[in-house]
Amino acid sequence: MNLKEKIREIENFPKEGISFKDITTLLKDGDYFRYAVDSIVNNLKDKNIDVVVGPEARGFLLGAPVAYAMGAGFVPVRKPGKLPGETEAFSYDLEYGVDTLEMHKDAIEPGMNVAIVDDLLATGGTTKAVAKLIEKLGGKVVAVEYLIELEFLEAKEQKLSDYEVRSLIKY
Amino acid sequence: MNLKEKIREIENFPKEGISFKDITTLLKDGDYFRYAVDSIVNNLKDKNIDVVVGPEARGFLLGAPVAYAMGAGFVPVRKPGKLPGETEAFSYDLEYGVDTLEMHKDAIEPGMNVAIVDDLLATGGTTKAVAKLIEKLGGKVVAVEYLIELEFLEAKEQKLSDYEVRSLIKY
Repeated sequence: MNLKEKIREIENFPKEGISFKDITTLLKDGDYFRYAVDSIVNNLKDKNIDVVVGPEARGFLLGAPVAYAMGAGFVPVRKPGKLPGETEAFSYDLEYGVDTLEMHKDAIEPGMNVAIVDDLLATGGTTKAVAKLIEKLGGKVVAVEYLIELEFLEAKEQKLSDYEVRSLIKY
Repeated sequence: MNLKEKIREIENFPKEGISFKDITTLLKDGDYFRYAVDSIVNNLKDKNIDVVVGPEARGFLLGAPVAYAMGAGFVPVRKPGKLPGETEAFSYDLEYGVDTLEMHKDAIEPGMNVAIVDDLLATGGTTKAVAKLIEKLGGKVVAVEYLIELEFLEAKEQKLSDYEVRSLIKY
């Protein structure tokens, strides 16, 4: 199954010069959606994953079914103010400005094996922040899985060289 | 399995007087998460669901794994400006102000059997808007499934009497 043919590229979204990779055309096809989730699950077998962590909002779309299929828990990473319990926050630099992510403090227990799942690897800034949050709570990031990777941005080499990173579709 | 015991109630979140039902304590437990998803899937069997529709962001957490488990597609409903393709929008009244939701125009084909899945049924305003969007695109809303229902708000009677509505946990 060629997953890439189900990704729709939309030029100049969300701003001029960006070729947006739209995954909704893949998600709405039950066979392709299942195949994508199963491929990530297959990458994670033998890793004894306790919980899958996914960042809001598109990370939920793949991370939640991957967790379900493995019988693992799912932990959401959210923008500030969305999680109701006691949170741990992590701020990181964007091209212009700063972004902050939060996780519940009790979401990860020390020593847990954690997989991060997200839709797209661009610069790796979000993933690096999520990994730092997980480690701050005592979890071990044993794998990072994406549906899509923008290889020309070299995030694996520049930001995520400490982690085992895989993607199903490359541009 | 008693799903309710895994819901954490947080008082005065997001504002004074609200007892927030936190589902993250259920999601992070792999066994309970799987049981919740399987219970919804069981409610939907024999309904020939083509796609599951879930509203951003917590609707993704249950809707995506339900779609995956059934081999159906998943269609996200999002806030304005998030979906990159051509969208259909629907605005609806809140207690104070107006909210707008969007779906991709090509997300639903006429005649499709659609299930709406979300985390919580409160007043039913969001679900009603989502159902109208689906119907505008030619889809048939054959079931609406929630993890939690706030029965005292009487959304089923007041706003959703045209639909088949079920929930796993009631307050």
